Amino acid sequence: MYTYTQLKDFAYQVFIKMGCPESQAETASLALVSADLRGVDSHGVARLSGYVRLWEANRIKPNPNINIVHETPSTAVVDGDAGLGLVVGPAAMKIAMKKAKKVGTGWVSVKNSNHFGIAGYHSMLALEEDMIGISMTNASPLVAPTWSKERMLGTNPIAVAIPAGKEPAFVADFATTTAANGKLEILQRKQEDTPAGWVQDKDGHPSTNAFEVKNGGALLPLGGDREHGSHKGYCLGSIVDIFSAVLSGASYGPWAPPFVSFLPVADDMPGEGLGHFFGAMRVDAFQPKDKFKTNMDNWIKRFRSATPIDEHKPVLIPGDPERIISQERIKTGFNLLKPVENDLKELAEKFEIKF
Amino acid sequence: MYTYTQLKDFAYQVFIKMGCPESQAETASLALVSADLRGVDSHGVARLSGYVRLWEANRIKPNPNINIVHETPSTAVVDGDAGLGLVVGPAAMKIAMKKAKKVGTGWVSVKNSNHFGIAGYHSMLALEEDMIGISMTNASPLVAPTWSKERMLGTNPIAVAIPAGKEPAFVADFATTTAANGKLEILQRKQEDTPAGWVQDKDGHPSTNAFEVKNGGALLPLGGDREHGSHKGYCLGSIVDIFSAVLSGASYGPWAPPFVSFLPVADDMPGEGLGHFFGAMRVDAFQPKDKFKTNMDNWIKRFRSATPIDEHKPVLIPGDPERIISQERIKTGFNLLKPVENDLKELAEKFEIKF
Repeated sequence: MYTYTQLKDFAYQVFIKMGCPESQAETASLALVSADLRGVDSHGVARLSGYVRLWEANRIKPNPNINIVHETPSTAVVDGDAGLGLVVGPAAMKIAMKKAKKVGTGWVSVKNSNHFGIAGYHSMLALEEDMIGISMTNASPLVAPTWSKERMLGTNPIAVAIPAGKEPAFVADFATTTAANGKLEILQRKQEDTPAGWVQDKDGHPSTNAFEVKNGGALLPLGGDREHGSHKGYCLGSIVDIFSAVLSGASYGPWAPPFVSFLPVADDMPGEGLGHFFGAMRVDAFQPKDKFKTNMDNWIKRFRSATPIDEHKPVLIPGDPERIISQERIKTGFNLLKPVENDLKELAEKFEIKF
Repeated sequence: MYTYTQLKDFAYQVFIKMGCPESQAETASLALVSADLRGVDSHGVARLSGYVRLWEANRIKPNPNINIVHETPSTAVVDGDAGLGLVVGPAAMKIAMKKAKKVGTGWVSVKNSNHFGIAGYHSMLALEEDMIGISMTNASPLVAPTWSKERMLGTNPIAVAIPAGKEPAFVADFATTTAANGKLEILQRKQEDTPAGWVQDKDGHPSTNAFEVKNGGALLPLGGDREHGSHKGYCLGSIVDIFSAVLSGASYGPWAPPFVSFLPVADDMPGEGLGHFFGAMRVDAFQPKDKFKTNMDNWIKRFRSATPIDEHKPVLIPGDPERIISQERIKTGFNLLKPVENDLKELAEKFEIKF
């Protein structure tokens, strides 16, 4: 068992050893370990060695010059200068929030970035300023559009965080596929099959083999198949891709650079690096703050009290499961899988830091 | 068979007879018949008598005073004054576009409105000005959140229209449920069952009975069940509800006023009328216009040429099916179902106009 501070400090030390300035190492470690805290174990310290390998492959700059290349009062395009997405993300979100302070909303599209951890973390930064936060990113192409056997999109997540009053905030954070890749990895470790509608094989046939994506198959857009609305999941993933990468000048669709360092970057990339998109909307750009919060509390209470199918399984509000896990883990500590623990021990040895 | 002009002119005459000023009758008939044109037959002239009944029940004002009640440079809250959503929608979208012209983007939340037809129509208005258009609305509560047997949300559609260069625009327009209510109505008419994952019965059990919603059951969020991501569809429907109704001061969740005039409006409504949300983002607030369009053309061509599973079923771009139907119908005319034709004949008689 590890404490939150142990994991966060370790990540901080690794980022320092990679050459990050102190403030950026702090930002990156907060963003990274927020995934472990919220129960998204696939995106937390388990990914630390992946970021290190990308840095070793010269695909991540530890001290990037993150700068605005174009802007209007409510928009900006940010060049992440091949920095850690964990640093570029919060920097861009803060630009969106600064614009929202002045003109009501701010919208920032980012190019030349890398994997930014969990989308929810960035959107939640807006809550502190009574703003609605929106965050999305494109990602390594693993998803086949409806009727395609070719992988064209990432699992392209969308996160929306909405402040409330006395109730905890509404935080939706989800991949635009039936199941996130992390869910697949869990089944792979357990050697279990997937439910129908999660993956297809390399010829585009329905499959329940959790290893299908490694065999040239694909994850499926939310909906699974045409009859169950997979074209809607395909729309959502495409919108994320276009907002994150076409609006910014990043590499889109099947050209999105892969997270794993052993896969080469395409040589005909139409843009620079990975793309993200952030939005911040000041609540009081629409309603008096108190009135909005009272109505959000009412919304949340009404939905939480919706008649459940099974009285032992009450209806949840988006963000409830992750908040409950956070509270538990802060109390009881963090359990790491053996391979993740070994990974971190190797990093500790490589960088001569304590773990 | 009817021509586009016949249907549009008839709708115009009906709106005039309801007391709409000429310019509003023109706006409303364009918006309404765009549904028939795009193949969304459930939302076109088939609904005309529904709007008339709401007007007869004093729930639609034919000559509303649509006004801005609060604004910042990039946002506005609009009071639809109980007008036709078909008129309030385009008016609010135009406010969003005007703001986008000045500060890059515009975001408008609307209260006190009514059903606005198809979401796609409003988002597509932005295309004419080289803007990305976003449109969403809350709706009559027919959808049960994951684990709920109570109906709490509407089918709450999202539309996003993105301009391209030589290629036709990208236009996504979809209900945040596995299937829109219109699809259910088609199966009801054919007396056919639904696929699994579309509806549940009044106790929350999975069902394939297309009449289930009429028996106290519910439509299901995109994903169908928890294992297939219904919590994501529930998140999407909730975001649409909050952006459309909590941000504006409209009636949200289970209190959203029903479209059908024979169902009463709740007497404890937390807000005024139905809500919509519109966004407009100037493409050149992010990228030089030509560069953006060239990349969108490239995006569209690459996705259209993705290797298909079945070579006779190529991968489609969002908006393709509706555009193909439009082209066909403009050429061959519009076929109305007998009950719809009778409905329009009754309206013609009531208002003493020609059909």
